[in-house]
Amino acid sequence: MDDERGNQQARRVVTLALDAEGGDNAPGEIVAGALEAASTDLRVLLVGRPEVIEPLLERTNGSNVEIVASRSVIGCDMEPASAVRNLQDSSIVVGCRTVAEGRSEGFVSAGSTGAVLAGALLFVKRVSGIKRPAIVTTLPGNEGPLVFLDAGANADCRPDNLLEFGILGTAFAKIVLGVDRPRVGLLNIGEECEKGSELARAAHGLLRESGLEFIGNVEGRDLLRGIADVVVTDGFTGNVALKLLEGCASSLFLRIRQAASSSVSAKIGGSLIRPALRRVRAGLDPEEYGGTYLLGVRGLVVICHGNSSSRAIANALRFGAEALRKGVLSHVEEEFTRLAGSAGAAASRRPLVQ
Amino acid sequence: MDDERGNQQARRVVTLALDAEGGDNAPGEIVAGALEAASTDLRVLLVGRPEVIEPLLERTNGSNVEIVASRSVIGCDMEPASAVRNLQDSSIVVGCRTVAEGRSEGFVSAGSTGAVLAGALLFVKRVSGIKRPAIVTTLPGNEGPLVFLDAGANADCRPDNLLEFGILGTAFAKIVLGVDRPRVGLLNIGEECEKGSELARAAHGLLRESGLEFIGNVEGRDLLRGIADVVVTDGFTGNVALKLLEGCASSLFLRIRQAASSSVSAKIGGSLIRPALRRVRAGLDPEEYGGTYLLGVRGLVVICHGNSSSRAIANALRFGAEALRKGVLSHVEEEFTRLAGSAGAAASRRPLVQ
Repeated sequence: MDDERGNQQARRVVTLALDAEGGDNAPGEIVAGALEAASTDLRVLLVGRPEVIEPLLERTNGSNVEIVASRSVIGCDMEPASAVRNLQDSSIVVGCRTVAEGRSEGFVSAGSTGAVLAGALLFVKRVSGIKRPAIVTTLPGNEGPLVFLDAGANADCRPDNLLEFGILGTAFAKIVLGVDRPRVGLLNIGEECEKGSELARAAHGLLRESGLEFIGNVEGRDLLRGIADVVVTDGFTGNVALKLLEGCASSLFLRIRQAASSSVSAKIGGSLIRPALRRVRAGLDPEEYGGTYLLGVRGLVVICHGNSSSRAIANALRFGAEALRKGVLSHVEEEFTRLAGSAGAAASRRPLVQ
Repeated sequence: MDDERGNQQARRVVTLALDAEGGDNAPGEIVAGALEAASTDLRVLLVGRPEVIEPLLERTNGSNVEIVASRSVIGCDMEPASAVRNLQDSSIVVGCRTVAEGRSEGFVSAGSTGAVLAGALLFVKRVSGIKRPAIVTTLPGNEGPLVFLDAGANADCRPDNLLEFGILGTAFAKIVLGVDRPRVGLLNIGEECEKGSELARAAHGLLRESGLEFIGNVEGRDLLRGIADVVVTDGFTGNVALKLLEGCASSLFLRIRQAASSSVSAKIGGSLIRPALRRVRAGLDPEEYGGTYLLGVRGLVVICHGNSSSRAIANALRFGAEALRKGVLSHVEEEFTRLAGSAGAAASRRPLVQ
């Protein structure tokens, strides 16, 4: 085994906790994803009820996975904040606690986003100085991936929260995308600085004076054009936008399928071009090109789509481990400390709107 | 001519003012669009500088168009509110005034959206009882068109504004789409009523008690699925969403074009399926399936895309005239009066959250 790795850089061993009971396809697909991704340098703590998880590990070589026992499951219909307070033996709370206690460096879940968020804030806790951790995702821009946040953690934001998102996104783009000086844009409804809501206008002012590489407003139609490496917005607009991209892609491929059966030549053309279209579709799939992270807490929290397949879970584990190896968490803290001074000073010179 | 029309219902003559100097392709494409759409029952007032417009009418039979003289043009880089106050001889202000003075029933412009909006509020004026006129558009849902508002008139909204949008959208869907009892949805970031921003949660409460056919929250990924006939949101989120749909469609067709040149079979497939894909793309083009209207003012104000072609302008004129013949304006007032009582009562029972 040492011989096989002769030419590879030695990789640090990362341990991640995985919510074996979260998501529409739990526990089968989740456990399958863990078994696919687990290796000698990526250890997975499967958090779930042992009586449910153990049978799925029989007849497998589960040497790089370990069961961490939970006793209950938080459903997507439960109110997140009270669920994490009342169900402290749930897979989400137990998983978050493994991070807080240092047993793992991160937690991956396809369960209730709200509950993962609430659990992470309550148990993993914020990085010192960060007020509002944000959900960060990568979008499939025309020129390559771009960082987009907040994708849904904070439905109501103040201008200084958007400034914080600019700092978090910059750190993420540097480490995960490898961009030297990430260009930061503000999602807005016009190019000029005086355009937009009160929130957007005030955030524009803060970002302009922040010391970040701020390029100004980015409109909806330009989001995927790659004019910025990082695009920030409030968690309401961000979540609507992220889900709209998903819905728009589904709708378009549905129409193309219908169009491909509209005539004999379209049918033949459709079957010839199908493999290429499948690659286009895969390139738009968040499960392929990256994941969704809660950034700003003291561990890496990876939020997976509710209907995640084993492949999606395996990718999320691998992406998460890679981001940790590259030092994404320490970089977020460094970037925050480096920029918070000048940005904080800029923020204090302007009245906070709303 | 009377014989040709023997089997057609006699159509009321509608007069519309058109901003001949608004948009990237003004005045050539705009005037060409007017000449294409103008007829004995659709008269067009071409608002512009006579020395610019007259040469374009030479050698044409311009019997159904008439020049209304303006002296200046509001640029897209000008601050809208002060531009309409300072440039009262601009095509946008003169055009809005033809509506206010009863010379036309509506105004069509591909110029600065902000200036058209400001001009309409200042000169055409609000319908009595309506606080916030909204930009209404139709989106190409998978099951057919759906009404979406506010697409950008009001970047900052209160919950009662969103209720008003529900009423405006219901009237529009009844008349323009011919839906008997339009289902109204609220764009939000979760299905449950307690999800979303403070604004969305408060608006949810008002809409539920409004007497409208409220079906609850609609997430971004379901917007095009046709689960509601009318979807309401604030003008910031609405404008981001509308432009994002445009950007997403462009991005996808770009990727498909690239994919279609990735191999010999993909190239052949692409050329065979191209006509069908063109129809898919045309079906997503706002210029084909409807227009964008400012609703809630005392005339029909049609806002066209800045890069509108002559075809887009001709379609906007025809759609506008048809909506007026169907009585969209009087219906908005009726619907508003009918529902404002119960909805207003519901609104007053709840505190208005910012």
